Amino acid sequence: MKALVYKGPGQKAWEDVPNPVILQPTDIIVKVDTTTICGTDLHILKGDVPAVTPGRILGHEGVGTIVERGSAVTGLNIGDQVILSCVSACGHCDFCKQGVYSHCLGSEGISGIGWIFGHLIDGTQAEYVRVPYAETSVYLLPKEVTPEQGVMLSDILPTGHEIGVRYGQVKAGDVVAVVGAGPVGLAAIATAGLYGPSRIISIDIDTNRIEQAMAFGATDVVNSGDSDWKEQVLALTDGLGVDVAIEAVGIPQTFTMCTEIVRPAGHVANVGVHGRPVELALQDLWISNITISMGLVNTNTLGTLLKMVAQNKVNADQFISHTFELSDIMNAYDVFARAAETKALKVILNA
Amino acid sequence: MKALVYKGPGQKAWEDVPNPVILQPTDIIVKVDTTTICGTDLHILKGDVPAVTPGRILGHEGVGTIVERGSAVTGLNIGDQVILSCVSACGHCDFCKQGVYSHCLGSEGISGIGWIFGHLIDGTQAEYVRVPYAETSVYLLPKEVTPEQGVMLSDILPTGHEIGVRYGQVKAGDVVAVVGAGPVGLAAIATAGLYGPSRIISIDIDTNRIEQAMAFGATDVVNSGDSDWKEQVLALTDGLGVDVAIEAVGIPQTFTMCTEIVRPAGHVANVGVHGRPVELALQDLWISNITISMGLVNTNTLGTLLKMVAQNKVNADQFISHTFELSDIMNAYDVFARAAETKALKVILNA
Amino acid sequence: MKALVYKGPGQKAWEDVPNPVILQPTDIIVKVDTTTICGTDLHILKGDVPAVTPGRILGHEGVGTIVERGSAVTGLNIGDQVILSCVSACGHCDFCKQGVYSHCLGSEGISGIGWIFGHLIDGTQAEYVRVPYAETSVYLLPKEVTPEQGVMLSDILPTGHEIGVRYGQVKAGDVVAVVGAGPVGLAAIATAGLYGPSRIISIDIDTNRIEQAMAFGATDVVNSGDSDWKEQVLALTDGLGVDVAIEAVGIPQTFTMCTEIVRPAGHVANVGVHGRPVELALQDLWISNITISMGLVNTNTLGTLLKMVAQNKVNADQFISHTFELSDIMNAYDVFARAAETKALKVILNA
Amino acid sequence: MKALVYKGPGQKAWEDVPNPVILQPTDIIVKVDTTTICGTDLHILKGDVPAVTPGRILGHEGVGTIVERGSAVTGLNIGDQVILSCVSACGHCDFCKQGVYSHCLGSEGISGIGWIFGHLIDGTQAEYVRVPYAETSVYLLPKEVTPEQGVMLSDILPTGHEIGVRYGQVKAGDVVAVVGAGPVGLAAIATAGLYGPSRIISIDIDTNRIEQAMAFGATDVVNSGDSDWKEQVLALTDGLGVDVAIEAVGIPQTFTMCTEIVRPAGHVANVGVHGRPVELALQDLWISNITISMGLVNTNTLGTLLKMVAQNKVNADQFISHTFELSDIMNAYDVFARAAETKALKVILNA
Repeated sequence: MKALVYKGPGQKAWEDVPNPVILQPTDIIVKVDTTTICGTDLHILKGDVPAVTPGRILGHEGVGTIVERGSAVTGLNIGDQVILSCVSACGHCDFCKQGVYSHCLGSEGISGIGWIFGHLIDGTQAEYVRVPYAETSVYLLPKEVTPEQGVMLSDILPTGHEIGVRYGQVKAGDVVAVVGAGPVGLAAIATAGLYGPSRIISIDIDTNRIEQAMAFGATDVVNSGDSDWKEQVLALTDGLGVDVAIEAVGIPQTFTMCTEIVRPAGHVANVGVHGRPVELALQDLWISNITISMGLVNTNTLGTLLKMVAQNKVNADQFISHTFELSDIMNAYDVFARAAETKALKVILNA
Repeated sequence: MKALVYKGPGQKAWEDVPNPVILQPTDIIVKVDTTTICGTDLHILKGDVPAVTPGRILGHEGVGTIVERGSAVTGLNIGDQVILSCVSACGHCDFCKQGVYSHCLGSEGISGIGWIFGHLIDGTQAEYVRVPYAETSVYLLPKEVTPEQGVMLSDILPTGHEIGVRYGQVKAGDVVAVVGAGPVGLAAIATAGLYGPSRIISIDIDTNRIEQAMAFGATDVVNSGDSDWKEQVLALTDGLGVDVAIEAVGIPQTFTMCTEIVRPAGHVANVGVHGRPVELALQDLWISNITISMGLVNTNTLGTLLKMVAQNKVNADQFISHTFELSDIMNAYDVFARAAETKALKVILNA
Repeated sequence: MKALVYKGPGQKAWEDVPNPVILQPTDIIVKVDTTTICGTDLHILKGDVPAVTPGRILGHEGVGTIVERGSAVTGLNIGDQVILSCVSACGHCDFCKQGVYSHCLGSEGISGIGWIFGHLIDGTQAEYVRVPYAETSVYLLPKEVTPEQGVMLSDILPTGHEIGVRYGQVKAGDVVAVVGAGPVGLAAIATAGLYGPSRIISIDIDTNRIEQAMAFGATDVVNSGDSDWKEQVLALTDGLGVDVAIEAVGIPQTFTMCTEIVRPAGHVANVGVHGRPVELALQDLWISNITISMGLVNTNTLGTLLKMVAQNKVNADQFISHTFELSDIMNAYDVFARAAETKALKVILNA
Repeated sequence: MKALVYKGPGQKAWEDVPNPVILQPTDIIVKVDTTTICGTDLHILKGDVPAVTPGRILGHEGVGTIVERGSAVTGLNIGDQVILSCVSACGHCDFCKQGVYSHCLGSEGISGIGWIFGHLIDGTQAEYVRVPYAETSVYLLPKEVTPEQGVMLSDILPTGHEIGVRYGQVKAGDVVAVVGAGPVGLAAIATAGLYGPSRIISIDIDTNRIEQAMAFGATDVVNSGDSDWKEQVLALTDGLGVDVAIEAVGIPQTFTMCTEIVRPAGHVANVGVHGRPVELALQDLWISNITISMGLVNTNTLGTLLKMVAQNKVNADQFISHTFELSDIMNAYDVFARAAETKALKVILNA
């Protein structure tokens, strides 16, 4: 089959590789119908994720059709079309029993991390993929949801929802600020609406992006390049700050922006992937009764979000900016990598 | 009357001052029966809390007897003996309605802080004290509880309980580590036992203190001076870290110790008062699904803890290391300030 | 002044009575700008609420302007326009500290009930009303909210929200059924939308009412007069029943309907006021892992709902079916009492 | 092998039956080391549970050693000694993903019930037993816990804990009443202590049993045969009733006792298995802001309780009143059935 293979920092190829085979009775083999590219894939290509070694097939999102199943898989059938979760969950380790699939201990013998596709095992940017722990890691695609919409549920929508909105404890009446209007920030905005906030403020330095945020449900936008951005945010509250500040960029400055605008007894939810430590102003914050949360998505709300997409209560289509054939993936990577210029959000790859 | 008056950095005096008077209909005047000294009072004396100006009577803990009441006070009577909360709560601002008394907006016109005794208004290290918002800020002392025990409920027990144990979300079966075995750390240990943890590990650099911690309910102790302290802690877990790490010191190193021993999906609860920023290793922690909490005590669990002390389910007496007459307060300060040497925990001052 | 006075079962009069006066330092006197009639007022008039004695002024909802204030009231000013809560909360008893204002112990010496207006003290269907515990029982009317909208926040919106939606633990993705499409059932429907349900099913025997429910946010309607009503409801779920069933009528049959359609691990939230016991089928339900909740509104979410009305995220206007002058209240009672015929929901009375 | 076989109402036999075999790749075969008898087994023998058909091997509790495993079982090994849960959980249906194993949809094709051992498939009162969904339904027995202690974790301790204490929302400072001092009531008492209640009141009509309750952690006892039992209970509260009332009998009278002693905003947790409907006094209770919960155990806290037993924080041994050889099971049934006379609590059967 053909697959997108990591060849070491800065290098990748769409090339012939052997087809995947069933390794465990709980595995399935899926023919990939639709997949996409994540910002994390770009990090891997830069060489920032040393656990990914040359030869690895990339990708951790996708919708596909089951073509083979292991002997222990009884609840899924050949021909079923399924959404793949970016996190593989054995379903029976201590973490999985708590719903903390992100730290599944059983993943292929690799402890403490549930994200393995395109990382520790071969991923979804391929014609076929082996899916471990199938019964606890995939969801049947209902007829009301398209495969393209389904791909938005592999990672991006659960990440914005779980790590942004739910860890941030958004509740009815809250004022929520989301710093960063890339795909994950927009997913936080889109799913925050399920919790009845009174305002959702999108904050970004790029005017085009924050205007786009209005379509996802933001009620207000603030350009963080403005010298008075903080005053603008506070003016949208009762003056005491936002109830929830969601960080969706991944750099020290944006994290600090969040701690500066959160009100006493509020919440900072970090969603961004950080590469450097940040300075936390505990000399000021110790007295502030806030919580700061962070983490990798568990996708334990994928089923709930799937219902919301099926009911058109969350619009998954609007995340899709470009569509390519799977075989055109090298070009798709190029468009996605130049997002500022191409205005790419999520690029869809159809087999 | 006599009172302990702050005279500027490094200076204090036990001297004659005018008796307090009712200023608001919701005030009471209390004759102080028992009070104590807090580590925060030492910080103030060093000049570290600029909001405290010379002339201020110090102290925010105490039990006393009502000698006068404002016209709006109907639920409390002259002669009632009451526990004073270190936090004054108006009871009707937005924060108070949520139980976030620590950020009461109504406190004497000073916004965003419920701790005003011995800080923004005169405090309890005096023969008499004016108590604002009496009906929402004091608790009747039941006959089963001594005044000395009651003083432990003004600040220290609620602080360990609320900011350590509850913000840390301690639950049945958890392994809890408490870094720092001073009075507040011991209060966290003593109240953690109400939540059914499987282990409570006391961590401190002072061997005497952590041994003392066993009497408060610690099941295990680790000396943080040992080069392998971290391995010792992990060996008391399943190897993945503690469920809850409570910081009760207030310096960057002890905060970082907590983030290093907490397991995925665990909690770091900061109780210590910090004077400097800390470096938060978000490059490692973004993926860890932890929460970090912090804050000033609300004393909204004072009533619950009072029941537990009345039922001998929390032992308040063991926090008391020394007892003095109130008029001997200058000496008491000296003993308390040399705690490492005198082994002082809480020093009681009886009128 | 003029007021609507209960004269014993079946009798009422709009007549001259003495103006109210300040009795406690925490009281205010309010000139009523807008009030309304509640189904409970009709019950009282039937003689069903013996605690209400002849001579009592009825009414527990309203918006008015402060004309006098007690000496302890500092956060409210003469001339402020305020929303009155149907529940009076002292703010400092054990129940109030938990936010359970419905069981305020301090209400005028009458223990265990926070609803006193038009019940144990004179109410709001009058030109003026004395408001006890003013600072913990009224909310400033913001300029974005009209007095008529404000009146919907005195009782009906908080009741549907707190006792229906929140006690029912509605969460994102849930299927919610609301049995009864009167004002309180519609308030449950309107506020359920703040919690991201995938479906809200309105169930009533009156076709006009359930069609009206669509305007309040119901996604589906079922006529309970249909012999297959239950199958219709289950067909809107995955076949296992609804996540939350809200009872908003108050008779045994509708309560039992709720226990019959709720899924395992779901919730039944009783909002209706019942006059008779119901038979609970514990022989079937003991194994069902459901919760059943009930209670009087606390109005502790009035502030949150006020924000949602101000932001047009909850539409309060659509509850108002008729508007009268306050002096025309006898006529308004007549229209409201014949709701089936007049299609009355809430009737507004403007001074 | 030998097994205890149900032969129709009133009849059972310890007789030769075929050994169980692996039917699914997720099964294991366990040699039973220790088992016990549940009150439910007596109900089945009376013919009260029609789903149990003649020929069924009874029993749903046990500790055993793995002698064979299906091809999908990788986390458990031949020779491992494991605690069997009374509830079988597939681990991947909608209910299992929420931790509601009691309503597992995947159990051997039988929908909506996780309890299948000794009910819908052969049970544990046998020399060997087939265990479905092994990796999500058994727990390794740690060396600190004896097999006899482990058997108390199959059903009784999780049932008292989950359906009594946790559904009852017991929290620090609460007054808890447990009606019924049989094994499950005592399990609720023993595990309530993990949540910091100020009092645990054991209520039963049998003086011997409630005195025994003190050893399990009850702080007070009330004989429900006393005409003033209710006044005695209220006198142990502030007069307003208990925070949590746990029903552990299963008849209408004891359920009603719970609704009569619970305070406003409190909780009634039904644990008893009922055979008849009960009359719920909604005409009084609609205003009371209580919750009523019920359900079958999920055993999703078995792992937590196992830690507490291993740490001697819950004493499992004291539930064991008699010990027999497995082959003497007919005699053990006789002793257990005459519990009032023999003072049997749990009878242990050792292979």
